Amino acid sequence: MPLTDAQRTDIETQRAASATTRRATVPALEERLFEAVPLLDHGFLRVIDYMGDDSAIVQAARVSYGRGTRKVSEDAGLIRYLMRHRHSTPFEMCEIKFHVKLPIFVARQWIRHRMASVNEYSARYSILDREFYLPAPEQLAAQSASNRQGRAETLPPATAGRVMDMLRGDAMQCFTHYETMLNTDEDGIGLARELARMNLTLNTYTQWYWKIDLHNLMHFIALRIDPHAQYEIRVYAEAMLDILRAWVPAAAAAFEDYRVGAFTLSSGMLDALRRMLDGDAVTAENSGLSRREFTEMMAALGRTA
Amino acid sequence: MPLTDAQRTDIETQRAASATTRRATVPALEERLFEAVPLLDHGFLRVIDYMGDDSAIVQAARVSYGRGTRKVSEDAGLIRYLMRHRHSTPFEMCEIKFHVKLPIFVARQWIRHRMASVNEYSARYSILDREFYLPAPEQLAAQSASNRQGRAETLPPATAGRVMDMLRGDAMQCFTHYETMLNTDEDGIGLARELARMNLTLNTYTQWYWKIDLHNLMHFIALRIDPHAQYEIRVYAEAMLDILRAWVPAAAAAFEDYRVGAFTLSSGMLDALRRMLDGDAVTAENSGLSRREFTEMMAALGRTA
Amino acid sequence: MPLTDAQRTDIETQRAASATTRRATVPALEERLFEAVPLLDHGFLRVIDYMGDDSAIVQAARVSYGRGTRKVSEDAGLIRYLMRHRHSTPFEMCEIKFHVKLPIFVARQWIRHRMASVNEYSARYSILDREFYLPAPEQLAAQSASNRQGRAETLPPATAGRVMDMLRGDAMQCFTHYETMLNTDEDGIGLARELARMNLTLNTYTQWYWKIDLHNLMHFIALRIDPHAQYEIRVYAEAMLDILRAWVPAAAAAFEDYRVGAFTLSSGMLDALRRMLDGDAVTAENSGLSRREFTEMMAALGRTA
Amino acid sequence: MPLTDAQRTDIETQRAASATTRRATVPALEERLFEAVPLLDHGFLRVIDYMGDDSAIVQAARVSYGRGTRKVSEDAGLIRYLMRHRHSTPFEMCEIKFHVKLPIFVARQWIRHRMASVNEYSARYSILDREFYLPAPEQLAAQSASNRQGRAETLPPATAGRVMDMLRGDAMQCFTHYETMLNTDEDGIGLARELARMNLTLNTYTQWYWKIDLHNLMHFIALRIDPHAQYEIRVYAEAMLDILRAWVPAAAAAFEDYRVGAFTLSSGMLDALRRMLDGDAVTAENSGLSRREFTEMMAALGRTA
Repeated sequence: MPLTDAQRTDIETQRAASATTRRATVPALEERLFEAVPLLDHGFLRVIDYMGDDSAIVQAARVSYGRGTRKVSEDAGLIRYLMRHRHSTPFEMCEIKFHVKLPIFVARQWIRHRMASVNEYSARYSILDREFYLPAPEQLAAQSASNRQGRAETLPPATAGRVMDMLRGDAMQCFTHYETMLNTDEDGIGLARELARMNLTLNTYTQWYWKIDLHNLMHFIALRIDPHAQYEIRVYAEAMLDILRAWVPAAAAAFEDYRVGAFTLSSGMLDALRRMLDGDAVTAENSGLSRREFTEMMAALGRTA
Repeated sequence: MPLTDAQRTDIETQRAASATTRRATVPALEERLFEAVPLLDHGFLRVIDYMGDDSAIVQAARVSYGRGTRKVSEDAGLIRYLMRHRHSTPFEMCEIKFHVKLPIFVARQWIRHRMASVNEYSARYSILDREFYLPAPEQLAAQSASNRQGRAETLPPATAGRVMDMLRGDAMQCFTHYETMLNTDEDGIGLARELARMNLTLNTYTQWYWKIDLHNLMHFIALRIDPHAQYEIRVYAEAMLDILRAWVPAAAAAFEDYRVGAFTLSSGMLDALRRMLDGDAVTAENSGLSRREFTEMMAALGRTA
Repeated sequence: MPLTDAQRTDIETQRAASATTRRATVPALEERLFEAVPLLDHGFLRVIDYMGDDSAIVQAARVSYGRGTRKVSEDAGLIRYLMRHRHSTPFEMCEIKFHVKLPIFVARQWIRHRMASVNEYSARYSILDREFYLPAPEQLAAQSASNRQGRAETLPPATAGRVMDMLRGDAMQCFTHYETMLNTDEDGIGLARELARMNLTLNTYTQWYWKIDLHNLMHFIALRIDPHAQYEIRVYAEAMLDILRAWVPAAAAAFEDYRVGAFTLSSGMLDALRRMLDGDAVTAENSGLSRREFTEMMAALGRTA
Repeated sequence: MPLTDAQRTDIETQRAASATTRRATVPALEERLFEAVPLLDHGFLRVIDYMGDDSAIVQAARVSYGRGTRKVSEDAGLIRYLMRHRHSTPFEMCEIKFHVKLPIFVARQWIRHRMASVNEYSARYSILDREFYLPAPEQLAAQSASNRQGRAETLPPATAGRVMDMLRGDAMQCFTHYETMLNTDEDGIGLARELARMNLTLNTYTQWYWKIDLHNLMHFIALRIDPHAQYEIRVYAEAMLDILRAWVPAAAAAFEDYRVGAFTLSSGMLDALRRMLDGDAVTAENSGLSRREFTEMMAALGRTA
């Protein structure tokens, strides 16, 4: 359960308040505002604020004076055109702000996306909670032999149990010592928080406010929803895509068609494909491609390599 | 008059619509939403959308779950602290979107601020209007001798008249030829728009949607509201500061105290000032500063150098 | 001829000097350093400095302590892998600095790429030269009917002559008045430079120093070398690609294969293509794609739609 | 000792090689190239590459064709002027690339500076070394009572000993379990690297290539060399400032005068200071400032509040 009662009350209080605005408003997203989507064992993602909607994309592309009277279908067509031709600036005109709770090792991947604003909970200033990510047994997988940065099959139960014991035991012991170092009781140590935090393990949870525009959000999702992304960040990307569908349905549909479900053919792949369409028997050997590239292309085309 | 009747109608239609939202809302800014603030002879600035308020800055700095129950004065104190110690990320959590109409030579200065999103009206795609900036007579000033990039005294009326004739005549002739080149009538030329536009003068008006976060907006205003900034961009910065006061009053007050009205003493100036406070007769010669630096410091301190 | 004798001398003096360095050095690029590649009628592009080479990309990807002893072919393979999987950060580890002379209307497109550093020649501080872009006759083309932001067939000679007369006449008259306004002779006007410049036409040449990393440079080239980009900026992108081939040959080859010559299939296009490979007679009507998307896909595949 | 013999050999091999270049070259920095400056117990900072020198700043500010024949003192004067008036773009024209080894909790602070390029050693792809930061005894300090994110007095030896035992013990145990989980021997676990790494403590060392322009580097140093910055990142900032002095001596001197040793007076402080210079007895109470601001100002002026 990722939230305390006090936190739930804060969220409910905020959800209960409302105001009148002249701004572009999306009822389907308002419905979800402030609510925490639970992720992993203690994490969450919740939308704190947003700016703009599908029409705002169109309005910026046209530099118009009002919201216009075009049909929804015309707007969707323009949005598809912008997405296909990588005219990205109109998508920057929408903005969203999340509150995210996530393990530190996930936060370290996440922060590599620089085109966003972040305020992280400070362990120099405050004390972290005793919460660490412990994978579900089905997530404890062996190192992949073919993909140097991926996972293979799930560990057998007994082996998984050994891993869980180590992960849980070490995280708890490190946290207990963290508390001991911070303790300011009579015979406590009272170590500076900025030092004590270094004893925590990388699966400790942190949290931050994260604000990003729609263009950069789609770039983040596209990279992190990929099957090669680590599972523990992919679940956040999937939750974001779900929010995207509620917030900007036309942009989300174009994004899924032109990015998430797309495949880029290199110049060499285009050559090979043209030959295939001409009826040639193209093989890995005579394709002019490396075996790996040939396999990737055939997989995308639903052929056996 | 910068707006056509159709544009006024679009704006009024948008102002008339409203919705209910759970988001942070600022009534004083809602009041101004979409309305055009007229600037220069044909330009304007209008707020199209915004995200966040003073409390959103505080909420992000604290990474909190709700809007909190602290007093407004406590929030203002934290905002002053963040501003004084250049903790800029909480200010990035507010965002604003403007529609701006401005002369091209001003747009060229403006765009140098990279930390913003822009969609400009495209002269490859559309035809520009016959509107150019012609300075008011009191703005026609001589080149400054002391400041290589500034203005000195206003030109005498007869000389100003000669300048106005040239500016107006050339802009009109260039625009007329632009139209002639674009003309697709029977004996028209029908030149591509992307080529014809090169015949326009730099005082022709363009327009764009411009979106920026509060931290970067304050940086823009601080640089462009400076007396050394060119008058024609300064009027936009002043209009933005006025909007800032309505939108985020606590942040605006801290900004005016710590940035707009502030002065940075170099290490050498600090030395000289300490001697002055000790009662030494510090002069340009014995100050250890260049004459220009000494003069700048004395001016900031309200002393005669 | 874009350079004065004094400028040529400055360039030759700089080319004649040399030093010893421990840094990664690329002889093929050293050969071209400082030399101006002439572009359009008065423009140019010249490399002022660079950092890194193909090996620097590999070294950063491996976070290695030295330059390694791998074969060139292994490095090229890793670079292809990074390019294919959009691992862009190692490409950010190379940097290049250009001095560019270009018409203002091209500069306005160019500057939209924000991930670069720019120092432009200041017309507030200095006086511009009497140089404007006048297109070669074969570049004077009619507005395209099918592409709202493109060109169609070349204008007939007589019509082109009318256009040239207007472009040349207006640019010259505007520049003459610019000089008149700036004139500080006895009966001159002495207008501030920051004001006088607004009378110039958009084909006036400006110049700047422009510094960018390799990743962002490839993004710039990919967008601006596209057949839909305006000719007047495309020539600069083509000159840059040529420099890229001398500077980082392995990265340039991967870039041309995976970006410049590539085509992205949307999810819908992948469906249609799978059916084609299965032997179905796929037409625009039964493809599930819009006519425009179907046509674009068939063109990329070298089929007639 | 932060380097292995193999790493030393790689560095020496690279230092032994040299080439001829036409680029701006700084002998004092060449002298240090590739050498590791040891920091903390296992960390280091070493310069891998650089672009530009003091003259390159001047050259960009002037958009010149050659390196010019001005005196060094004139260049230094222009650089001081640019620094004082916050004309930051010419400083962006110099670039430097570091290889840094640092504890993960320091890396997490560091990465918040977004205007840089980073390639970090990947613990998904490779196995980390058994190296963790253990503070020197004199760095083990109590939590500050006055500064919520700072340190106070050093811990007494016995208490420090308890802290050291916990830090060392936990880091070693976590690392041993990390190795156990990764072990692929017959009865090993073979857990995926991307999972095993979550068991490491935050004082484990990581490393990265980090590339940044001079303007943003100075911003980083100014923030992290501050007495309020955490000691463990401050030592890196101090090492960088030392490198800055060798690389761009004129820019470094201006930076130390106008940034590192400077103090910004708010509008309210300026008022109080003007009264002090007029001979008024200004106290915290009648200054119009908060007590904290008054104290900060008096400290900067070398007065007792």
